[in-house]
Amino acid sequence: MSREPAEDAGADDEVRRAHADDEVRRARAWLSRAVEPGQALVHDYVGSTGPIAAADALRAQHAPARVQALIGARHDEDRVAADLAAAASIGARLLVPGDPEWPAQILHAMAVATAAGIDGLAPPLALWVRGRGDLAELTGRSVAIVGARASTSYGSEQAAQLAFDVAERGWTVVSGGAFGIDAAAHRGALSAGAPTMAVLAGGIDRSYPAAHAALFDRIAQNGLLVSEWPPGCSPYRHRFLIRNRLIAALSAGCVVVEASARSGARHTAGRAAELGRPVMAVPGPVTSAMSVGTHALLRDTEARLVTCVEHVVEEIGQLGTDLAPMVRGPGRVRDALTAVQAKTLEALPRRNPALPEQIARAAGLSVLDVLSALPALEARGLVDCTDGAWRLTRQRDVRR
Amino acid sequence: MSREPAEDAGADDEVRRAHADDEVRRARAWLSRAVEPGQALVHDYVGSTGPIAAADALRAQHAPARVQALIGARHDEDRVAADLAAAASIGARLLVPGDPEWPAQILHAMAVATAAGIDGLAPPLALWVRGRGDLAELTGRSVAIVGARASTSYGSEQAAQLAFDVAERGWTVVSGGAFGIDAAAHRGALSAGAPTMAVLAGGIDRSYPAAHAALFDRIAQNGLLVSEWPPGCSPYRHRFLIRNRLIAALSAGCVVVEASARSGARHTAGRAAELGRPVMAVPGPVTSAMSVGTHALLRDTEARLVTCVEHVVEEIGQLGTDLAPMVRGPGRVRDALTAVQAKTLEALPRRNPALPEQIARAAGLSVLDVLSALPALEARGLVDCTDGAWRLTRQRDVRR
Repeated sequence: MSREPAEDAGADDEVRRAHADDEVRRARAWLSRAVEPGQALVHDYVGSTGPIAAADALRAQHAPARVQALIGARHDEDRVAADLAAAASIGARLLVPGDPEWPAQILHAMAVATAAGIDGLAPPLALWVRGRGDLAELTGRSVAIVGARASTSYGSEQAAQLAFDVAERGWTVVSGGAFGIDAAAHRGALSAGAPTMAVLAGGIDRSYPAAHAALFDRIAQNGLLVSEWPPGCSPYRHRFLIRNRLIAALSAGCVVVEASARSGARHTAGRAAELGRPVMAVPGPVTSAMSVGTHALLRDTEARLVTCVEHVVEEIGQLGTDLAPMVRGPGRVRDALTAVQAKTLEALPRRNPALPEQIARAAGLSVLDVLSALPALEARGLVDCTDGAWRLTRQRDVRR
Repeated sequence: MSREPAEDAGADDEVRRAHADDEVRRARAWLSRAVEPGQALVHDYVGSTGPIAAADALRAQHAPARVQALIGARHDEDRVAADLAAAASIGARLLVPGDPEWPAQILHAMAVATAAGIDGLAPPLALWVRGRGDLAELTGRSVAIVGARASTSYGSEQAAQLAFDVAERGWTVVSGGAFGIDAAAHRGALSAGAPTMAVLAGGIDRSYPAAHAALFDRIAQNGLLVSEWPPGCSPYRHRFLIRNRLIAALSAGCVVVEASARSGARHTAGRAAELGRPVMAVPGPVTSAMSVGTHALLRDTEARLVTCVEHVVEEIGQLGTDLAPMVRGPGRVRDALTAVQAKTLEALPRRNPALPEQIARAAGLSVLDVLSALPALEARGLVDCTDGAWRLTRQRDVRR
């Protein structure tokens, strides 16, 4: 990944950067087919060498043995052009870190969890998305509503009602596009005229289940279908577990509506908890096998019992209100900064993330000063971090 | 209340003490009609002057003004003989502290809570009971199952099943004898052939509700009806709140099966929590008004979600197993005592509680030694305390 210093670039630089961006996108497209997502080893390798060098090394089988081993025979496969073309043909696109639409802020928890040694939570290398929604915007206020495929009518009704109610309050409903609770949640949000987001375990051109083809088309009209796998990829069983972490990561909190004793929704809830997101569960009759999992969550974990939208918003609302004022009252945020924080903010790039050393040079501060200021700026939602490099978030106009 | 030194009494003393016991019983019978239960002021006054002197002073309107004010015009009412006769005529009896059947150990939490300044939790001055059960025995392993009068069929079924299941495991089900969840709980225990206990808010000769006359008769056959009010007393509205604390106090834990938003069962649960008892709640459909109260308990308090008997026993079982070995393996308990604890235990009276000073004299120990030994003996269930005076519990044979 190319990292630019903090100064504004001239016209020549723009052209060069566009070319570099395209190379990065192609490298990440290749990586997204070569590597199963979520592995810290790959994430760290790509982070340290950059995506272009990482893809080149893996193709040439020159990557460190442990990383090389993770892609197996895929080193000589190159379907980048075909994958990008397939995506374009259905109006889909590939997002990579650095894109304005990349949801760096909400995904940051994955890097934190991975750095803390939690397994299988590495951030996505790239995201294939289809639909009119803007991923960064939709995940600014998003909540996961997940649950059993074999839901009861009680559970489906609760999921639809809850999704309708949170959507009415401006939250994006994130779910997995499956039968049962997932579908009820998507439909509940759509019935409120709101965008919703389905995170899939296979290519965004594939309808799984096939019966949901029309639902997915409807979701894409003003929401998003999201996947870490390139077009054409099958939703293999193990991919649902990898996918679950992304449902959790793309949401401010996770509500489980119905879950059997051995439900994937409990796995998603566990991932949400590992990412520091509030987990909620809707109770049900103790006579219902579809409430065994939710009751277990309520008994054995920190999950909070919720019965209505007010309960859900109470859990996730703080994040929402913390983020919202950034857009509404930027002047005051700027005023509250220390001199060092303000100088650091001035020096931050708008587009291509910069390393702390580069920011320090541009700001005329010591690297230690910059390192102490960045977390405070991040806590205010002003900057975000990708692979150790920083840039302004979309609320960058606070600087003016 | 007469307090005897620790030595065995001769035949003359026995006669004198029987007479004194009768006087105490009559004084407490009078107090039970004159004073609404649960008031710390009265409890402390009776504790410091003894029940006979307290009743005499209140009758003569010589008690401290704040205490006197609590009985109002009742000072010139004397229905002791009639109340005792009414009880005898229906096979009922009056229990007072010091009686072998008095559940001193489980009620001790009330004195602790009252000493800690929690309002309205003072121990009962006396208990009117009807039935073949032994109150101290039935409360050795007892659990409250309470809930809404206007229960749903779901709630009634859950209460009956849970009561049946805990009864089968040797626990006494304690409830309030009301329609709905209470009745279902009593019936569930009875269907297991087990004793159950109804704690009433009026005289034990009155069936409230009237439709439960036959149920109460059935409960009395091998269980107990319990009330703090003398025969003939009406179950006034405010008495249910006073009564609720006793349901909580006579149980090792409290399960709420269904409760509306403003349910008495939530009040009972709150009392249980104040007494340090585990509170449990059975969830239900979020669409049911009768589960609003249980869900609120699970959201807003320390109440634990339970769906089956195993969950309930997990919460209350520790107290049960802590108590049970006292009966089964007394020898080892005795062996584990320190020399001071053993000497203190030797000196403890079997019948009439003694003050720490009296015990110290009998044991040849300092009062400080005795005061340090008593809590440890109490924790082992070997001694209990009433109004600051101590005696052996029913497991007193550990001494031999």
